Amino acid sequence: MQLVLLSGGSGKRLWPLSNNARSKQFLPLLEKEDGTMESMVQRVVRQARLANLTEDITLATNASQQDIIVNQLGDSVNLVTEPERRDTFPAIALAASYLKLAKQCADDEVVVIMPCDPYTEVGYFETIGKMVECVKADVADLVLMGIAPTYASEKYGYVIPMHENTSTGSAQADNENYKMVSRFTEKPSVEVAETFLKQGAYWNGGVFAFRLGYMMNIVRKYMSSDRFEDTRARYSEFPKISFDYEVAEKAESVAVVPFNGEWKDLGTWNTLTDELHKPVIGNAVMGAHCENTHVINELQNPIFVDGLKDVVVAACPDGILVCSKEHSEEIKKSVENLTPRPMYEERRWGTYRVLDDSYYADGRHSLTKSITLKEGKNISYQIHHHRSETWTFVQGEGIFVLDGREQKVKAGDTVVIPVEHWHAIKALTELTFIEVQSGNPLIEEDIERTEWTWSE
Amino acid sequence: MQLVLLSGGSGKRLWPLSNNARSKQFLPLLEKEDGTMESMVQRVVRQARLANLTEDITLATNASQQDIIVNQLGDSVNLVTEPERRDTFPAIALAASYLKLAKQCADDEVVVIMPCDPYTEVGYFETIGKMVECVKADVADLVLMGIAPTYASEKYGYVIPMHENTSTGSAQADNENYKMVSRFTEKPSVEVAETFLKQGAYWNGGVFAFRLGYMMNIVRKYMSSDRFEDTRARYSEFPKISFDYEVAEKAESVAVVPFNGEWKDLGTWNTLTDELHKPVIGNAVMGAHCENTHVINELQNPIFVDGLKDVVVAACPDGILVCSKEHSEEIKKSVENLTPRPMYEERRWGTYRVLDDSYYADGRHSLTKSITLKEGKNISYQIHHHRSETWTFVQGEGIFVLDGREQKVKAGDTVVIPVEHWHAIKALTELTFIEVQSGNPLIEEDIERTEWTWSE
Repeated sequence: MQLVLLSGGSGKRLWPLSNNARSKQFLPLLEKEDGTMESMVQRVVRQARLANLTEDITLATNASQQDIIVNQLGDSVNLVTEPERRDTFPAIALAASYLKLAKQCADDEVVVIMPCDPYTEVGYFETIGKMVECVKADVADLVLMGIAPTYASEKYGYVIPMHENTSTGSAQADNENYKMVSRFTEKPSVEVAETFLKQGAYWNGGVFAFRLGYMMNIVRKYMSSDRFEDTRARYSEFPKISFDYEVAEKAESVAVVPFNGEWKDLGTWNTLTDELHKPVIGNAVMGAHCENTHVINELQNPIFVDGLKDVVVAACPDGILVCSKEHSEEIKKSVENLTPRPMYEERRWGTYRVLDDSYYADGRHSLTKSITLKEGKNISYQIHHHRSETWTFVQGEGIFVLDGREQKVKAGDTVVIPVEHWHAIKALTELTFIEVQSGNPLIEEDIERTEWTWSE
Repeated sequence: MQLVLLSGGSGKRLWPLSNNARSKQFLPLLEKEDGTMESMVQRVVRQARLANLTEDITLATNASQQDIIVNQLGDSVNLVTEPERRDTFPAIALAASYLKLAKQCADDEVVVIMPCDPYTEVGYFETIGKMVECVKADVADLVLMGIAPTYASEKYGYVIPMHENTSTGSAQADNENYKMVSRFTEKPSVEVAETFLKQGAYWNGGVFAFRLGYMMNIVRKYMSSDRFEDTRARYSEFPKISFDYEVAEKAESVAVVPFNGEWKDLGTWNTLTDELHKPVIGNAVMGAHCENTHVINELQNPIFVDGLKDVVVAACPDGILVCSKEHSEEIKKSVENLTPRPMYEERRWGTYRVLDDSYYADGRHSLTKSITLKEGKNISYQIHHHRSETWTFVQGEGIFVLDGREQKVKAGDTVVIPVEHWHAIKALTELTFIEVQSGNPLIEEDIERTEWTWSE
């Protein structure tokens, strides 16, 4: 069985912690039993592993999220990156092509697609196990998870089951585990949703199971290539359409396996803070007169809060949010243009934080970053056309290359990289340096990259 | 007439903006008519000048405030710095000694002592003018300002006038302008304060007028020296006692000149925000659902607030405060130890901000600052025994000295200053550099200073 996690989105509903480089599923805000923190995607992958569903987990994501996934999950998962954002059908088609063409999976391999960030529990993964059994028993072309609705919501898709199961599926799948699906409806009005609830409808949780061959037959309507890299190169030929429309609604037979355990989208500060075990994360102190208030501080500057009720405070290099939880659902538009660029990013080699981004009266611009490379990691051999950089090493040891000459560097050393000079750095131990950029423009895009062959 | 402003305090009641290096009177939070901002001390000096009281204004302060006063007031005021904090009598005795011994003022010169940070209006300075007239008319040895009480407060000293003026003062001072004082009382209970109010008592606003010779006679009880520098060097010989106890309560005749205009101590966020013209100062956006909320942001990180009522948000390199105005009166103890060192300081040559202060797993410590020198200013020729520094210039031009060799530097240049090397920098234009310190310990006190003779 192959588990594919869809990692999408770049929203700012969890601003300032989420930005274009760090979607909500990567925020390290959930506490594990041992007290350490993990992100939503780390939690889901950990839960999937604990459920013993499969060793084969693939993340299907946009190329812009590749670095942060590698940083958070290492090489424990396969990665399929879409070259551009399209919709869920192209993303799943690309993942299926990867499993078929790159991983050489058989046509009868069962594939389960799920979102990478539901806040849920062990029963969710047990339900996925039941879905796999249904596919193996051929109860339907497509099997999906039906979330037991808790209210008549307008914001979910609904799955309406038939009254009687008419499937001819074998005895392998317990009939009580699934129902055949009559139809789907996207985001109904509250009134319509109420009638659905009376008919025993479920929310569509975006979890689908099918045999790989079934999906590949649909993929081949748009793309006939024998090599995954060809499929990926021609990704723009896939139509911009959702999996629900292109596959689920057209399927001849669809079954739904119900799940009625804990299932939440921690997509706003209001819902997310409900699941935080501690009122304070990071360098912050809460006074005695706070009620239902949460503080998350990723800055060095200490935070003191007091006398607040139902408020969330979130601070990081991108900005500082202080908002009533009630109004925290609506911040997205207000904060859209507050931060000109991500001020914190996780990359495959480590992380950087912008410490200072200043424009001066004389028209000059400077950008100061703290950059940390994990042991053994390196940044690519690169050149900038519009900026010089000064690196002062403050932790660890590494190998620095400038114009083809390697030299060892360690905390206390400073190197200067003039405009138009090739350079790279590799961390022998965890390595931190302060980078001061000067030039114009100072943008991440001013970079050309190649690879350096390290002597050690 | 000589006006002496007492500048004391180092409290944290306006944390994070106030710290040990920046007392509340130096916070640039008050808006002038032209829209620019000024601090409380800048406002008081400007008001005193507008009132045409005198050209001779002296700030009596602690040595630790010397740099920030020079930065905010330039050389437009005289400065008397006490070498250590004692109490108000020694501070005023030192200022009087300065006027007598250094400025050579005559014994009959009228001296007015006042705090440097009342939030008040033109009538306050007109009242000071009346006090001067009273001293000139010899109505009493000591004349003080009586603030018309607005309620029976426990936190002020009270001045209780006699029923009839018994002074033999000449006609120069209009009798209606002053009352003779019967007695003083410090911070009474509310019940006692209420009886005072019925007796027509005033709050003691800490504004005193006297002839210089009168004060010098008291000073000479403790200190007989003919040179101001000797007096200053022997400052610790003055008793730690308040001016009220040592002078006011012992005076043979004291008069009070009433003032009943606007007079406030903007000493807490609650009182200070009442006087802010705008709800937002700095890089912040307020959503539509805020009420009686103020945001002051001295950080680069943008702040977004919404859904708050009666809250103050204040952010700067030292920390971030989010507090109901009600509880903002009590923050002092809670924040006492939140910030290990000032993260922002104004010095006589300009300002610095700490951008990063990190301790690493390998035991190393690094400190990164953005430092800006005003045009023409320089820092002293100095040496550090425990740290190296890398300076990357990002704005302007200057002259850098290392071990006796001057060189011109400009934005884009980097210089490295190893441990135990003498260095200085002078700004030819406004000059900014990013300083990365590495070493152990990284403390401001690791410095030896001398002066460099600049070639230009």
